Amino acid sequence: MRTSQLYFSTLKEAPSEAELVSHKLMLRAGLIKRLGSGLYTWMPLGLKVLRKVEGVVRDEMDKAGAQELLMPTIQPAELWQETGRWALFGPQMLKIKDRHERDFCFGPTHEEVITDIARLELRSYKQLPVNFYQVQVKFRDEIRPRFGVMRAREFVMKDAYSFDASFEGLQASYGRMYQAYSNVFSRLGLAFRAVAADTGAIGGSGSHEFHVLADAGEDLLAYCPDSDYAANVELAEALAPAAPRAAASEALHDVETPKQTTCEQVAGLMGIPIEKTVKLIAVIDAAGKLVIVLLRGDHSLNEVKLGKVEGMDGFRFATEEEIRAAFNCPPGFLGPVGAPAGTRIIADRTVAAMSDWVCGANKPKFHIAGVNWGRDLPEADVVADVRNVVAGDPSPDGRGVLALCRGIEVGHVFQLRTKYSEAMNATFTDVDGQLKPFEMGCYGIGVSRIVGAAIEQNHDERGIRFPLAMAPFALAVVAVGYHRSDAVKAAADQLYAELQAAGVDVLLDDRNERPGSMFADMELIGIPHRLTLGDKGLAEGMVEYVARRGGDLEKVPLGEVAAFIRRKLAE
Amino acid sequence: MRTSQLYFSTLKEAPSEAELVSHKLMLRAGLIKRLGSGLYTWMPLGLKVLRKVEGVVRDEMDKAGAQELLMPTIQPAELWQETGRWALFGPQMLKIKDRHERDFCFGPTHEEVITDIARLELRSYKQLPVNFYQVQVKFRDEIRPRFGVMRAREFVMKDAYSFDASFEGLQASYGRMYQAYSNVFSRLGLAFRAVAADTGAIGGSGSHEFHVLADAGEDLLAYCPDSDYAANVELAEALAPAAPRAAASEALHDVETPKQTTCEQVAGLMGIPIEKTVKLIAVIDAAGKLVIVLLRGDHSLNEVKLGKVEGMDGFRFATEEEIRAAFNCPPGFLGPVGAPAGTRIIADRTVAAMSDWVCGANKPKFHIAGVNWGRDLPEADVVADVRNVVAGDPSPDGRGVLALCRGIEVGHVFQLRTKYSEAMNATFTDVDGQLKPFEMGCYGIGVSRIVGAAIEQNHDERGIRFPLAMAPFALAVVAVGYHRSDAVKAAADQLYAELQAAGVDVLLDDRNERPGSMFADMELIGIPHRLTLGDKGLAEGMVEYVARRGGDLEKVPLGEVAAFIRRKLAE
Repeated sequence: MRTSQLYFSTLKEAPSEAELVSHKLMLRAGLIKRLGSGLYTWMPLGLKVLRKVEGVVRDEMDKAGAQELLMPTIQPAELWQETGRWALFGPQMLKIKDRHERDFCFGPTHEEVITDIARLELRSYKQLPVNFYQVQVKFRDEIRPRFGVMRAREFVMKDAYSFDASFEGLQASYGRMYQAYSNVFSRLGLAFRAVAADTGAIGGSGSHEFHVLADAGEDLLAYCPDSDYAANVELAEALAPAAPRAAASEALHDVETPKQTTCEQVAGLMGIPIEKTVKLIAVIDAAGKLVIVLLRGDHSLNEVKLGKVEGMDGFRFATEEEIRAAFNCPPGFLGPVGAPAGTRIIADRTVAAMSDWVCGANKPKFHIAGVNWGRDLPEADVVADVRNVVAGDPSPDGRGVLALCRGIEVGHVFQLRTKYSEAMNATFTDVDGQLKPFEMGCYGIGVSRIVGAAIEQNHDERGIRFPLAMAPFALAVVAVGYHRSDAVKAAADQLYAELQAAGVDVLLDDRNERPGSMFADMELIGIPHRLTLGDKGLAEGMVEYVARRGGDLEKVPLGEVAAFIRRKLAE
Repeated sequence: MRTSQLYFSTLKEAPSEAELVSHKLMLRAGLIKRLGSGLYTWMPLGLKVLRKVEGVVRDEMDKAGAQELLMPTIQPAELWQETGRWALFGPQMLKIKDRHERDFCFGPTHEEVITDIARLELRSYKQLPVNFYQVQVKFRDEIRPRFGVMRAREFVMKDAYSFDASFEGLQASYGRMYQAYSNVFSRLGLAFRAVAADTGAIGGSGSHEFHVLADAGEDLLAYCPDSDYAANVELAEALAPAAPRAAASEALHDVETPKQTTCEQVAGLMGIPIEKTVKLIAVIDAAGKLVIVLLRGDHSLNEVKLGKVEGMDGFRFATEEEIRAAFNCPPGFLGPVGAPAGTRIIADRTVAAMSDWVCGANKPKFHIAGVNWGRDLPEADVVADVRNVVAGDPSPDGRGVLALCRGIEVGHVFQLRTKYSEAMNATFTDVDGQLKPFEMGCYGIGVSRIVGAAIEQNHDERGIRFPLAMAPFALAVVAVGYHRSDAVKAAADQLYAELQAAGVDVLLDDRNERPGSMFADMELIGIPHRLTLGDKGLAEGMVEYVARRGGDLEKVPLGEVAAFIRRKLAE
């Protein structure tokens, strides 16, 4: 294509609405245009990128044996009422009444619709397994849409749904999708990680998130560089310390801490490592009773894990008023020794293995040191993993230590089991003649979010650095002086025709602009390879090559350009 | 692809909901599945067809210089309020409130959104012309969705919008789109006609509808087989008779018509041609006054044309009560001679040229004959073209006579001029430095409707006969005995691999079904070409070829099949 045939417009500055780098760059490069809150038009240049991502996704889904269909975006409420999600889904779901006052929604996801199709279409185990997918616009009414296409309200999603006769079949379907997702992100040239994810209320054994690694990611991931282990920090297990608890060696004694309310301050005052301190978090359990949670001073509470401790589902933090009433002491000086009688104590595994520790004294301006389990207070009621892992923790698979990184979730695979098929009475006749509910899996990819995530991971001060597989064009040919030099025009037109004939996805910049402005635009929009033609080089029969990702400028004889570029593209 | 890898299911009988042949066949062939009223899932086989249509549309739009983008489906009400269409569009528009109670709609069309983009992006005549298009799901809340995908609520549309600096530029853009549309329907292998269409309230000089010709079409079209003339009957002009009015030759006289209330009955009783009779239609004009409209007995009123006569915009038909009160006579015996004093008379051009005609006598059970203008009643107040053309009428371009056919509207091109750009203050700086509103055109294709219309035009008692360009597969290879004969399996697998290597879009039917059932399925789903492999033929080294559109069965040597099929596909 020629820039003269392509509508695109770049901006020197991003609109002030944009916070994230990827959002700023997508607006500056003219890939998207804002229509309203969380609503974006994909302009021609941006749509080229989106379509390339879609193409890779489709190809890998097809190769994995999934079959594409297209369900309506508008869905009848009745189906959602069958699974109870009409009431449960919350305000993210855009509810609609049609002209006859019947209830519908703009589908935020399609489990109900596909299960309805399955119960009508799939009657026998002989028809299984089946995996249906679609690439479609979804709408989720985010309370605060932001970050451009990364958290838009309307977005493009690939959603797939598998139907199997048995759990073993589901696991095989799940495995194929896991592999297909890995292939997609590899082919797109993205650094990514698949991590074990929380399965929430649904249960079942398997769920993985696929994250594009980027500093701006909303998710914190733990992984083991020496093994396959990776998990969202929400889920990553913190093992109990390998060494047994040391015997008590200090006597219990008060420490005056007139202004020290945090473990860090207390450790600083006492000149001891923070790892010797314990902090108390007062929470209220589901039954409304006060519960004490103990963490080592440098650790942080993992609320997902705490919620899984018996009786703690739906816990909340105690208010300052509740704390003062229970402990008769202000926050900052609380401890388990002499805590209100009958209060349940949940100790993190690390704390349970500590001896001679320091904690609040339950009186203002005092801490106590030399605290020991069994001697100064009873053993904890519950010992559990309730903290977030930190870098250097042993990997749960026993094969090294954990590292942390941030990620942007772009895919999620999930073993639904029979949650939807049972709720909607979607059954098939199995080989034994029995009616059974389908074993289902669901598999989502945030197609439009991938574009933002890829830019978040691949950019520099000059703009976007698209991986080749999703770049709007593979190669830019900048013709300097196209409108004033017949030699440049003739050489550019001929080279353009040659490259097109060779199947190269080339953009010829034939605008009448300053060279610096043309280079800046091609860099901003992230084209991986660039050739420059000008009178000076052509006089020597040479054109200049430079890669968007840097490296030296190379001079290439005009007659060898096509072969040279094919080599570069194959690298 | 193999049938064993393709999810598809066919039905012997169509669900009772289906009225039209195309709807029945799409359900029977498993191309679509109903989700709710006017809501259909495109199943894998149907989606293949839809994607082929989309592919041809995209290719022709790209070739015509239009650029694809993708606008949100959900649109803010504010934009529609700028053009006044938020109030005007009516209940077809699905209105939505988001979680913040702000008004949105599911876009039924995108003039407002694209004009908003243009006023932000296009500032100078140097950027013009531009033509943006998208292929997108639209929603129109039809009061009575029916005919499957032909009048669904959710459907796939290609909508394009051109922006020009001048009316001449608009006409050129319009011409390119007209040609692109003709190319699309030609390439899809459809018998179609572009007809001049009513431009309605928008005015402007140009609008054409593209119709796929089919007996079940909702639109009646007039065209001239000897010229390019074609128009929707709503618009087709009925010329005034070429011959001048003959002189009066009969005296006015009563005819007793005791039971004859229609022109047909009166002509039958009198033994005269119906072309000698005139019927009276009593209507009430915009001001609430009675108006008489006269048509020849065999002609029908064209309400669009009558509405364009001065003072008749928004007319309605008189009620029987109003007629009895005004004429003191029941309907069936009304005529203009002796009609209520001061009643305006609008005569159709044909009636104005008649002499010695027959009409009602304004007394029960009597007509009058030998009626003549100027002698028995004054000349009509208005002579106008207010009837529908009939087959045999002279073509308005003077180059033959008109024929009629029925069509299904699948495309519409429209010169919007500055209606939207003025309403939304969308301007550019012209070459003379002046700010001017864009000259706009809009161009729609009902992508999903095309599939229904194509089937309406191309089917027989055995099912669908898809044109090659939109068939789900070009060729079916039916392997009879694939599961019991090693020879058939080996030959089928090898032939399948060969055809795939030759780039043939082939479906290998490798199911373990009766041959008759496999043939019936391949015919029902409309695959244009079929090869059959069986033990008997293979013993002679032959396979059998038959075309879906009929013709003799041909025997083809196994080694020559690929070349043979390539020839067939090129025909």
